[in-house]
Amino acid sequence: RYGMIEEVDQVGTATGLAYTAAGGDTLAIEVSIVPGKGKLSLTGKLGDVMKESAQAALSYIRSRAEKLEIDPSFHQNNDIHIHVPEGATPKDGPSAGITMATALVSGLTNRAVRKEVGMTGEITLRGRVLPIGGLKEKTLSAHRAGLTTIIIPKDNEKDLEDIPESVRESLTFIAVQHLDEVLEHALVGE
Amino acid sequence: RYGMIEEVDQVGTATGLAYTAAGGDTLAIEVSIVPGKGKLSLTGKLGDVMKESAQAALSYIRSRAEKLEIDPSFHQNNDIHIHVPEGATPKDGPSAGITMATALVSGLTNRAVRKEVGMTGEITLRGRVLPIGGLKEKTLSAHRAGLTTIIIPKDNEKDLEDIPESVRESLTFIAVQHLDEVLEHALVGE
Amino acid sequence: RYGMIEEVDQVGTATGLAYTAAGGDTLAIEVSIVPGKGKLSLTGKLGDVMKESAQAALSYIRSRAEKLEIDPSFHQNNDIHIHVPEGATPKDGPSAGITMATALVSGLTNRAVRKEVGMTGEITLRGRVLPIGGLKEKTLSAHRAGLTTIIIPKDNEKDLEDIPESVRESLTFIAVQHLDEVLEHALVGE
Amino acid sequence: RYGMIEEVDQVGTATGLAYTAAGGDTLAIEVSIVPGKGKLSLTGKLGDVMKESAQAALSYIRSRAEKLEIDPSFHQNNDIHIHVPEGATPKDGPSAGITMATALVSGLTNRAVRKEVGMTGEITLRGRVLPIGGLKEKTLSAHRAGLTTIIIPKDNEKDLEDIPESVRESLTFIAVQHLDEVLEHALVGE
Amino acid sequence: RYGMIEEVDQVGTATGLAYTAAGGDTLAIEVSIVPGKGKLSLTGKLGDVMKESAQAALSYIRSRAEKLEIDPSFHQNNDIHIHVPEGATPKDGPSAGITMATALVSGLTNRAVRKEVGMTGEITLRGRVLPIGGLKEKTLSAHRAGLTTIIIPKDNEKDLEDIPESVRESLTFIAVQHLDEVLEHALVGE
Amino acid sequence: RYGMIEEVDQVGTATGLAYTAAGGDTLAIEVSIVPGKGKLSLTGKLGDVMKESAQAALSYIRSRAEKLEIDPSFHQNNDIHIHVPEGATPKDGPSAGITMATALVSGLTNRAVRKEVGMTGEITLRGRVLPIGGLKEKTLSAHRAGLTTIIIPKDNEKDLEDIPESVRESLTFIAVQHLDEVLEHALVGE
Ligand SMILES: [Ca+2]
Ligand SMILES: [Ca+2]
Ligand SMILES: [Ca+2]
Ligand SMILES: [Ca+2]
Ligand SMILES: [Ca+2]
Ligand SMILES: [Ca+2]
Ligand SMILES: [Ca+2]
Ligand SMILES: [Ca+2]
Ligand SMILES: [Ca+2]
Ligand SMILES: [Ca+2]
Ligand SMILES: [Ca+2]
Ligand SMILES: [Ca+2]
Repeated sequence: RYGMIEEVDQVGTATGLAYTAAGGDTLAIEVSIVPGKGKLSLTGKLGDVMKESAQAALSYIRSRAEKLEIDPSFHQNNDIHIHVPEGATPKDGPSAGITMATALVSGLTNRAVRKEVGMTGEITLRGRVLPIGGLKEKTLSAHRAGLTTIIIPKDNEKDLEDIPESVRESLTFIAVQHLDEVLEHALVGE
Repeated sequence: RYGMIEEVDQVGTATGLAYTAAGGDTLAIEVSIVPGKGKLSLTGKLGDVMKESAQAALSYIRSRAEKLEIDPSFHQNNDIHIHVPEGATPKDGPSAGITMATALVSGLTNRAVRKEVGMTGEITLRGRVLPIGGLKEKTLSAHRAGLTTIIIPKDNEKDLEDIPESVRESLTFIAVQHLDEVLEHALVGE
Repeated sequence: RYGMIEEVDQVGTATGLAYTAAGGDTLAIEVSIVPGKGKLSLTGKLGDVMKESAQAALSYIRSRAEKLEIDPSFHQNNDIHIHVPEGATPKDGPSAGITMATALVSGLTNRAVRKEVGMTGEITLRGRVLPIGGLKEKTLSAHRAGLTTIIIPKDNEKDLEDIPESVRESLTFIAVQHLDEVLEHALVGE
Repeated sequence: RYGMIEEVDQVGTATGLAYTAAGGDTLAIEVSIVPGKGKLSLTGKLGDVMKESAQAALSYIRSRAEKLEIDPSFHQNNDIHIHVPEGATPKDGPSAGITMATALVSGLTNRAVRKEVGMTGEITLRGRVLPIGGLKEKTLSAHRAGLTTIIIPKDNEKDLEDIPESVRESLTFIAVQHLDEVLEHALVGE
Repeated sequence: RYGMIEEVDQVGTATGLAYTAAGGDTLAIEVSIVPGKGKLSLTGKLGDVMKESAQAALSYIRSRAEKLEIDPSFHQNNDIHIHVPEGATPKDGPSAGITMATALVSGLTNRAVRKEVGMTGEITLRGRVLPIGGLKEKTLSAHRAGLTTIIIPKDNEKDLEDIPESVRESLTFIAVQHLDEVLEHALVGE
Repeated sequence: RYGMIEEVDQVGTATGLAYTAAGGDTLAIEVSIVPGKGKLSLTGKLGDVMKESAQAALSYIRSRAEKLEIDPSFHQNNDIHIHVPEGATPKDGPSAGITMATALVSGLTNRAVRKEVGMTGEITLRGRVLPIGGLKEKTLSAHRAGLTTIIIPKDNEKDLEDIPESVRESLTFIAVQHLDEVLEHALVGE
């Protein structure tokens, strides 16, 4: 069923964790990169903060293109579309920042994202990972969806104690400070 | 009469199913593709979610152009207009996603859409088909309009039981998970 | 007086019929086509639905340019301005669709519009003519303005019975399903 | 004083007549045409209807460029700015249409506008002059400002009877149906 | 202190006078002109009327470029930024028109503005100077800031009597009808 | 932890001081400059005044490019992104002006910003530094974050007396009138 863990590792898709009034949820972030003129499309009923998050993720990747082994002119020779399905559900906030960055790097490098990994964290223009809210609810929904590895911001480590022990022990948590660490754990090795 | 099944298979037109406060309705999705500079027009009093759906459909097609035997530069050498008649009636929601994708592929490949087919389902950037609401009302209106084959999302199969047996037995339902399946059943064979 | 039938057949102008809270009215649709860069201007305090109608009319004409004996690149080498006088009066709705299409084809082919013809009907991207509201009030105002031939959508034929017999018998009604029929009756023969 | 008749005939300026809640007023319409890329600026706290009026005036002039002895490419090689002073006062309505057209033709042909002429009337895309409201108040303000010739729409002739005889007899009224007549009376002969 | 008279004559800066609910204030108008593509930026929390004023000032200068000994293509080869500091304070109205024009001419000709001069007046597209409100309050604030020469619109001369005699006698007033006079008195001689 | 002083001097990042309803806070201003077409992106839920501040900072730097040893065409050959993390927190006001200017100059010259320096002050188009509000609260938060040098506007020197002596004595204050002084103290020497 949709909303459950992917059956195989995917390129250009990563799984984020959302926290809404209705509780936690998983969020598929899809990226499409096709030859074009440098247009960026952001769809899925995304709020302004989430759209700015996507821009920050993209700027970070552009500034590190060489290190990431991405053609530095990728931004001008392609149209990039980031879409978050369930298009009728409003989504906002900065916490999908590292997920959008991961989906973008995956699509640009053609390296798949590990299907068992979920993640949450704000990204800055320098690739720093900032803390987010709702870690408990996000983790429970990740667990329900069948994910087994959760990448979280280092500054959220202190919130792990709030998660029921049975769930916590069945998951692997990776606490990170920088996007480099996210990519290392989320992308399938070359 | 308008709103009834087409008299012949059409190129660039597909029939969607809508669910409004006033009940179910059929929706003709019309596509016009003419030489131009890559402008996309979306008209028919469409809400933002429906417009984003059209963008997702288009991005999916661009990313699969080669497999669909479509010139990959179609997007830059043409102006594309998607219109949904009864221009005074507001329309919204993601459930026309696969219908817009089908009308686009039909117009781009010059393959007609089977006139007896109606369809409903959200499309993602990867071509996945997500569940929608109002299946019962949509199906009843499709039946009234004379359609005989209804393409629905796999995740909506469980809702078929809510449709009156007399209607259900006079229709053929095709439950799909991916746009490839939609196209296979909706487009006239080559 | 303005609002009365034209004194001679005009190129680039067609007469539509409007239905407002204040009753029926005739509507001059004026089109100006001058060498330019492909800009489309829509003025006369037009609502969004009426503007989308103009876009649908234009897209239909572009897709049939060759058949209509119009240079297919007309859209890129000209600026097109559609204006509906009495600029302070708000206008909306899709029912001027076939009138805008007729005025455009007239201006592009340099064929005049018969001055005694009024018309009303929504246009789709395929040139289909859809039914409209307020036929009775529209017809009465057309009669007052001195028009003698009224083009209406086929699906509105059933509403003719509501028009007072004295008016109905002094007018010629042409019921159509497609823009081709509209043009055949509204444009002066070559 | 500003608001009184000009001291000499001016190029690129014409005097319109406005009708507001506070009564009638005269309106200087100023036009600046400088080498550029075809940008149109409309300033002076103008409402949408007045801006559309300016566009209609401009389109009419473009469509008649040759007959008016204006370089047909004037629109693409210049930036055109139409400004209506007393920038803090909101202005709207279509009745400055013929004044804006006159100021534009004056600026484009370098022919001055007679300083004693005021005018009011909506313009259509074909140069027709449509009736306006508030003729009495407009005329009184024109008289106060020292104007002696007033150009009015033919369809407003019936309203002249409402103007006090003493004022009416000291003014020359020219009733017109088309912009050609306006230009003939308002522009200084060659 | 900021808000007091400049220490030396400046290029690209002129002092305007504002009148707000809180009384009169001086306003530094800063202009930056750098090689670019013809972009105009207007910042400092400016209202629409004030922005239109800046456009009128710029159009006037473009139309008189040669007479002002400015390269007529300055507008296309530069980006122009007009900023009014104290960026958190909303500003509006047309009375900074001549100040913006003066700052622009100063920046474009590299001639400094006399530091002891303040000014207020609406500008039209022909360079005419129109009357403004709040002259008394503006003059008092100019006096407090250390300015000694105040340029005012000719039509405001009648309001000078409202200014306390002690202040009035310590200031030099220059009443003008046209921007040429403003520039003559505000710019440092060559 | 995020929000504390950086561990090493950074290029393209500077620390500002904010004053909100919730008290003082530090603000990381991040700048990314990558090859592009001259696009400026401003993200982090910034209000209009703060965005205009960024534009003023950029225009100042463009006008002083040569003196700052920056390629004068930097603006056209790069895309510039200014982001202020904690993307869900609204930010506004002009007081981050000098911080944005400092981060930009750092990024453009590749000179690092001293990690122990925080700053606050409005910037004008000429590089002048104008006074700001909330100095006491800003200073306390800077102290908490581990900063030791605070750059403030000269016109705010009088407010230093309001800061508790213990805090004031542990910090170095630098009162400035111009951005040149800010850069001198904030950037690491060559
Ligand atoms: Ca979900
Ligand atoms: Ca805790
Ligand atoms: Ca219907
Ligand atoms: Ca069920
Ligand atoms: Ca009418
Ligand atoms: Ca009936
Ligand atoms: Ca007036
Ligand atoms: Ca009367
Ligand atoms: Ca002040
Ligand atoms: Ca007085
Ligand atoms: Ca913080
Ligand atoms: Ca104090």
